[in-house]
Amino acid sequence: MEEFNTKFTDVNTLGEFGLIDHLTKDFIPQHKSTVKGIGDDAAVIDCGDSCVLVSTDLLVEGIHFDLMYTPLKHLGYKSVIVNLSDIYAMNAQAEQITVSIALSSKFSVEALEELYKGIHEACRIYNVDLVGGDTTSSPKGLTISITAIGKAKKDKVVYRSGAKKGDIVCISGDLGAAYLGLQILEREKQLYLNNPGIQPDLENQKYLLERQLKPEARKDIIDYFLKSELKPSAMIDISDGLASDLMHICKESNVGAYLEEGKIPIKQEAQLMAIKFQLDPVTTALNGGEDYELLFTVDEKDLEKIRLMPSVYIIGEITDRKDGITLHTTGGNIHPLKAQGWNHFNPAEENN
Amino acid sequence: MEEFNTKFTDVNTLGEFGLIDHLTKDFIPQHKSTVKGIGDDAAVIDCGDSCVLVSTDLLVEGIHFDLMYTPLKHLGYKSVIVNLSDIYAMNAQAEQITVSIALSSKFSVEALEELYKGIHEACRIYNVDLVGGDTTSSPKGLTISITAIGKAKKDKVVYRSGAKKGDIVCISGDLGAAYLGLQILEREKQLYLNNPGIQPDLENQKYLLERQLKPEARKDIIDYFLKSELKPSAMIDISDGLASDLMHICKESNVGAYLEEGKIPIKQEAQLMAIKFQLDPVTTALNGGEDYELLFTVDEKDLEKIRLMPSVYIIGEITDRKDGITLHTTGGNIHPLKAQGWNHFNPAEENN
Repeated sequence: MEEFNTKFTDVNTLGEFGLIDHLTKDFIPQHKSTVKGIGDDAAVIDCGDSCVLVSTDLLVEGIHFDLMYTPLKHLGYKSVIVNLSDIYAMNAQAEQITVSIALSSKFSVEALEELYKGIHEACRIYNVDLVGGDTTSSPKGLTISITAIGKAKKDKVVYRSGAKKGDIVCISGDLGAAYLGLQILEREKQLYLNNPGIQPDLENQKYLLERQLKPEARKDIIDYFLKSELKPSAMIDISDGLASDLMHICKESNVGAYLEEGKIPIKQEAQLMAIKFQLDPVTTALNGGEDYELLFTVDEKDLEKIRLMPSVYIIGEITDRKDGITLHTTGGNIHPLKAQGWNHFNPAEENN
Repeated sequence: MEEFNTKFTDVNTLGEFGLIDHLTKDFIPQHKSTVKGIGDDAAVIDCGDSCVLVSTDLLVEGIHFDLMYTPLKHLGYKSVIVNLSDIYAMNAQAEQITVSIALSSKFSVEALEELYKGIHEACRIYNVDLVGGDTTSSPKGLTISITAIGKAKKDKVVYRSGAKKGDIVCISGDLGAAYLGLQILEREKQLYLNNPGIQPDLENQKYLLERQLKPEARKDIIDYFLKSELKPSAMIDISDGLASDLMHICKESNVGAYLEEGKIPIKQEAQLMAIKFQLDPVTTALNGGEDYELLFTVDEKDLEKIRLMPSVYIIGEITDRKDGITLHTTGGNIHPLKAQGWNHFNPAEENN
């Protein structure tokens, strides 16, 4: 039978992004239709006048979601949203998805119906067609794999790599709430496990819980860009956290950036809940992740158009690469920004 | 915390295809770019002059593969092949793939490198670009999700639904060997588990083992169709088994069909090994699955072109729907064909 390789290097030594880089370094695209391969929110494929965009995500029970506090309908909805968000982050419209599910025998047809109700709801609201997929069994738990397919005119596609010195850094909404919603759910889960008779105390935190359990993707922002003939220079969606995702833009664009602490939008509910959890609200906003807001940069000349947009916040500026990526605190200090985005392999360790 | 639905219907009651039908029945495509949604080997998306095709598969350790006898490099290769095969089955060229992996901590960087070596090899041989994906941890085992992206002129795409009465039924190669390769591996695994000191007896069955562990996808057949200006009327790849896959064509085309038992190509190695396992060689060829040959139908007028193709076998004919799907035995009898394709939810139960 198979002889296992004797060397064993723990995947944690490389980190999530390091591991992907390491494994894919020898894959050189050969097709001229491959406009963009690995390294953005979605792959971009040339189809003549227009481009097709493809983004895929694998969601694993016990890693990405916990069914103890995640209703299956919400899970179905969120699974679609996180993929659509990647297509919108390229300034493209999502039109189709495929959904593949692997599930253990603990799941009933009724449970799957709930999951698909959420998927259906997301498809309806975001006007996306379900066009394929797969349902199979799994020895343990639930795994959901979704591929989102989008379309855009070639010259409208926005990459992570287009930010230039002097560009304005914008965010489409408030940050940190999804992470705090998760903290509430995790706390109540622990209390429940210690004492199953206890009633969960969700503290009337509808906003924070919804940001975690039923996020939305910012199709409205992309629609607005089209209508107002505004094209960001670079864009990404906030999945790992503002700091980590800004670093992706800076790395791909070969620039630096600063954020103004006082301008990072944080809702009052999130401010108060962060303090209750003895967390710094700004750190929560910078590193929480899963907000699915759009982080984008625009040329200075588009400043007026941005000011007219509802719910868009100007939070910083793109600088020279040598200036690094920094946070200008309200106290007047300058700190280098650290990314502590989700590291599924080792949550305790920082991403690079 | 979440209240579980009190009704529990076992997913086995519906079968794999029944379950997908049930869950997706309310999803009605809205976009005119959705040329073909659920119900073929790949989804077809309109991009003006050409079409983009998308196919996705989820492969789960312990269900679709057993790492006890599957070298990771072969697994990587095969994972790509099964997806490319779906694109070729639409008469399209595969140009890109995305690969997402969820893995538990038992996997080292070296193990992943082996897996990606196989993925790289398949990409190189079939001229396909790796354009995206995801690597994440999993509480248990390995899950691989691959999406293949292809391209074709709109009028070249071949669906399952185009077969007409009088069309000739063809297969691109011999059947049953992959299933018999799996039987050898499973037998040796059981012997090894009972007595770990034993040496596996693979009986010099290189062909059968390769058909199981390192199958190929029939890009050459698609290339030939293009060169010889031949367009099949319907096509599917053999993943579930000849009987089951022919039934998909008949169902989608609203026709019947007969197969001639004596014309189903079975290699001598497979004949002999089937008998050794006390299996009927023809049943093995009809229901084994995982051969990844192309099953296609052509108009009678294309008979001469088919006769010129190397390694293509004419095995039957399309009939009226009312004639059903039958096997004409060498003894002169007519039997209704039964599909016993892979049913991941309940291997003992027949698919419908």
